[in-house]
Amino acid sequence: MTKTPDLILYTDSSPNGFKITIALEELGLPYTLKHVHIEQGENRQPDFLQLNPHGRIPVLMDTATGITLFESAAILLYLAQKTARLLPEEPQAHWSAITWLMFHTSSMGPLLGQRVHFELFESSTNPATIARYRELTESTFSTLDQRLAEHTWLAGDEYSIADIATFGWMHIARIIHFDFSQHRHLTGWYERVALRPAVQRGISLPHPATGP
Amino acid sequence: MTKTPDLILYTDSSPNGFKITIALEELGLPYTLKHVHIEQGENRQPDFLQLNPHGRIPVLMDTATGITLFESAAILLYLAQKTARLLPEEPQAHWSAITWLMFHTSSMGPLLGQRVHFELFESSTNPATIARYRELTESTFSTLDQRLAEHTWLAGDEYSIADIATFGWMHIARIIHFDFSQHRHLTGWYERVALRPAVQRGISLPHPATGP
Ligand SMILES: N[C@@H](CCC(=O)N[C@@H](CS)C(=O)NCC(=O)O)C(=O)O
Ligand SMILES: N[C@@H](CCC(=O)N[C@@H](CS)C(=O)NCC(=O)O)C(=O)O
Repeated sequence: MTKTPDLILYTDSSPNGFKITIALEELGLPYTLKHVHIEQGENRQPDFLQLNPHGRIPVLMDTATGITLFESAAILLYLAQKTARLLPEEPQAHWSAITWLMFHTSSMGPLLGQRVHFELFESSTNPATIARYRELTESTFSTLDQRLAEHTWLAGDEYSIADIATFGWMHIARIIHFDFSQHRHLTGWYERVALRPAVQRGISLPHPATGP
Repeated sequence: MTKTPDLILYTDSSPNGFKITIALEELGLPYTLKHVHIEQGENRQPDFLQLNPHGRIPVLMDTATGITLFESAAILLYLAQKTARLLPEEPQAHWSAITWLMFHTSSMGPLLGQRVHFELFESSTNPATIARYRELTESTFSTLDQRLAEHTWLAGDEYSIADIATFGWMHIARIIHFDFSQHRHLTGWYERVALRPAVQRGISLPHPATGP
């Protein structure tokens, strides 16, 4: 008899969702995956709004502790604390990881979301608006490239939840051809992360996977 | 002889800056305040880019630990950990605080930034774009209002860094007349936070203060 996993992940095949499937695969934690079909509006159903009143995936429920969280960065911090992994302990590296996790969460991810909206779904909009989000996201790519010119991983020497969060969105950027190849160090880092078996599993969940 | 404070805060009179001046005032920690004049481009000077390669305030340097951080949410987490204050210990409340801090940091603050840009600085833009950011930010106000209908503070019973982060931006929303008065609970919470002496000091730093 197999025990039902304590962790339940509500997600869809999308950038913020991948952050958590990747983290759970890296950690090798058992979890139940519930596919919330955004295209069918399942994230706006009353049952789901009980879990996240803002109606967004991912949501993680830990039945062992009774804690339910939304916001991908909060979930990543929770998993790192629960397992004491994917977040360096040494103070300097620890706070670098948190800084770069927040850089992604606040300064980069939301702007990539706006760029996707205007370039892919409202491409007839004002060209200045499209240019705005290209420039703003390009500037985050440059900042990351500079960091990764000096360090293997965003926090320094250790792969962490900062890399996972950033990769979740960069994977989508790659699929939809937001070209970042001129950023050599960022591209090298991308390839390093993409090769990890847990990452390959994470971006294919839930099935069917987004992109090739 | 007064000891030089360990903490150095680089900031300007602006929403993400207020989060940290408020937190430091709440904690009563001594700090040196360095005014980075964004309007004069001081945040793009080489010296400042050494501190934050992305060229944004706030930045906190802790000379006692040698740690320098940027991203307001990372700094708030650091100050909470350093002092064991402003972040509840009880697990449920602790993770609620982190969840709502991340909600602000990722889902709300960046969109308010976009709304300010289009409504105040590019008001001749496509009306659909302005309407987009009004709706998206209104929807974050509704989500907060619903949370605050049931809880005094965002994390539950305890005032925390989640309230401070959210207030930093709501203070600007109020000053520039983004009307949120129809959200009764959010408005009540706003008034409660605004009355705190540390908050009143925080939003006036660095001088001259933004707004009335
Ligand atoms: N800041 C949130 C963003 C969550 C988010 O926007 N999720 C998207 C999928 S990647 C979603 O649920 N979209 C559904 C919708 O907007 O209706 C996080 O990091 O978790
Ligand atoms: N996600 C960052 C945002 C920081 C940010 O955008 N700061 C603004 C002031 S509120 C800034 O430095 N702007 C200067 C610029 O964009 O040149 C945080 O939370 O700290």
